[in-house]
Amino acid sequence: MEKYWNNLRSCLGELKPYVAGKGIGEIAKGYGFAPEKIVKLGSNENPYGPSPRVWEAMTGTRLERYPETDDLMESLAGYAGASPEDVVIGTGMDGVMDTLTRLFLDPGDRTLIFTPTFSYYEILIRLCGAEPVFSARGPQFEADIDIPDDLKLIFICSPNNPTGNEIPENDLRAIVETTDAVVFLDEAYAEFGDQSFLGLVGEYENLVVGRTFSKAFGLAGLRLGYAVAPRWIVDEYRKVAPPFFGVASPAVAAGTAALDDQEHMRRAVSKIKRERDQLQREIPESHPSGGNFLYIETEEKSGLVAEKMLDRGVIIRDCASFRDSGEHHIRVTVGIPEEMQTFLQAYREIC
Amino acid sequence: MEKYWNNLRSCLGELKPYVAGKGIGEIAKGYGFAPEKIVKLGSNENPYGPSPRVWEAMTGTRLERYPETDDLMESLAGYAGASPEDVVIGTGMDGVMDTLTRLFLDPGDRTLIFTPTFSYYEILIRLCGAEPVFSARGPQFEADIDIPDDLKLIFICSPNNPTGNEIPENDLRAIVETTDAVVFLDEAYAEFGDQSFLGLVGEYENLVVGRTFSKAFGLAGLRLGYAVAPRWIVDEYRKVAPPFFGVASPAVAAGTAALDDQEHMRRAVSKIKRERDQLQREIPESHPSGGNFLYIETEEKSGLVAEKMLDRGVIIRDCASFRDSGEHHIRVTVGIPEEMQTFLQAYREIC
Repeated sequence: MEKYWNNLRSCLGELKPYVAGKGIGEIAKGYGFAPEKIVKLGSNENPYGPSPRVWEAMTGTRLERYPETDDLMESLAGYAGASPEDVVIGTGMDGVMDTLTRLFLDPGDRTLIFTPTFSYYEILIRLCGAEPVFSARGPQFEADIDIPDDLKLIFICSPNNPTGNEIPENDLRAIVETTDAVVFLDEAYAEFGDQSFLGLVGEYENLVVGRTFSKAFGLAGLRLGYAVAPRWIVDEYRKVAPPFFGVASPAVAAGTAALDDQEHMRRAVSKIKRERDQLQREIPESHPSGGNFLYIETEEKSGLVAEKMLDRGVIIRDCASFRDSGEHHIRVTVGIPEEMQTFLQAYREIC
Repeated sequence: MEKYWNNLRSCLGELKPYVAGKGIGEIAKGYGFAPEKIVKLGSNENPYGPSPRVWEAMTGTRLERYPETDDLMESLAGYAGASPEDVVIGTGMDGVMDTLTRLFLDPGDRTLIFTPTFSYYEILIRLCGAEPVFSARGPQFEADIDIPDDLKLIFICSPNNPTGNEIPENDLRAIVETTDAVVFLDEAYAEFGDQSFLGLVGEYENLVVGRTFSKAFGLAGLRLGYAVAPRWIVDEYRKVAPPFFGVASPAVAAGTAALDDQEHMRRAVSKIKRERDQLQREIPESHPSGGNFLYIETEEKSGLVAEKMLDRGVIIRDCASFRDSGEHHIRVTVGIPEEMQTFLQAYREIC
């Protein structure tokens, strides 16, 4: 046995597996709730779902054929205000970032992360055997623009998961202009925020902006993400990406159809923003957010709060699994009004 | 510019991008054919498509939710004669292999490949900065069981893509028992062959057998693959795999439904096998095949044959992109009888 174990890469020892939000099936089984009674607010999903056109488009897919992605690239370029040659896609934003790390990270290479933030960045870095360099965010969760030298890659999440704040344009520009590294700006939640920096990609040779269909477009299940990048990075990305970009053909069809009905997306986004801002006023210990979620400070340990929520059939996110988030923060996704009622009632009982 | 280019990993210079079979859209555009006139026999797809139950199951998917995979794991375990704890899934077989290479391959690590074979193995190895070691197959395309030392991983494809032959049980056992490396047996085409070695996984601590829904189950577009592996590898795989295994929720639903209607799959497979064996008899310069394709020696250069086929609206695979296949082999997928008629007519005109 041991002779086989020796084949494992030693860097895996440093790797803490990704902790996804809990699923409905899992909680229904573990806590004895009927699945339809469970309020899932732990994964920043969009309860309004995708445009009905998505279903029509998927029904036309020939599942026995490998995906063809040209039409989607065209539509994405239109949405992002770029050319199809500036766009890449992947298995969700996760897949896009996976391929990017494989362009730039050799063992030992240093990569900057502003903590607390989306934990998958660190996992991808460690998977490459590279070295994560952590920069703790300030009192308003702002990123420190005074960045270290000798970096290959910098991850910035804006609106930041889980804290919800957005990076000011001047800060972003300062970082991109100072560093020799490639900067990846994760805009997974941008449609819920007040700004987008897709337009800056054309100005810099070291800025990549990533987006996803999982949030505003209500297509988390399809695992479809994309990025706008300088041409030299697009060229390398296409060499290294998995066959067919690792994207399923129903996702290709669905993405194209979703972009064809942006009105549907905008209606869902504006309902969620209204609900979010109302909830934020009702919970003073929450922080302003540009995402479809709120970051809330808890007096009790967050793990305990999350557990008590589960007892009431409400899934929220214990942020203790986010590095440097401490043990007193939860993250709650903004759902439909009825879900927010259930959450608020449970929250008031507990906190 | 150059300061940014320096961030690229040097190992990417060695990497030749994956060449997928040509798509219908691409050929329709480039050659002026109506898409429905094109006969696509270049990607080893299954023309009969999936069970109708797949569509029903997909329609029930909540696309705005992240995938939950427990039911699929149960069904797969049943199909593979294993326990759910022995099964992993991924973004097609490609995704399964990607995660596996990231368990075992550090820069410089040696990995064995029997050429000619599926070219994505080499790409994955080089992406890890590891070193591919090539063992050329013999006159009947058999793998040399006298394998070198100091390997981390061995890839074996059976039935082998593109040559179609299967590895004898004794040869497989000899390799697995001799080496300290982990052996990955790619059985993407096993349902079209005469044997399966899924049952051997329980006997060895260093054998992983991979399978896919892309071929016999007619679900290439969904990018769903799986593997049966020793428990210690499953545990590590789950730590390293992308969130939700990188699998879309319609794929999860479809895979479960496809396994629920194996009769549909078996009917398609037996039609394809009958057609394949008949074609093999009609083309003496083809080799016996356990897959849904034939490997055919051409007098003219294969690139020229493929080009002439395209002029007639028939997409086949020029095997020159497979290392050690030389420049005189094509691979043709077994389609429906009408497609085989069209192919045969074109083939006889050309060869």
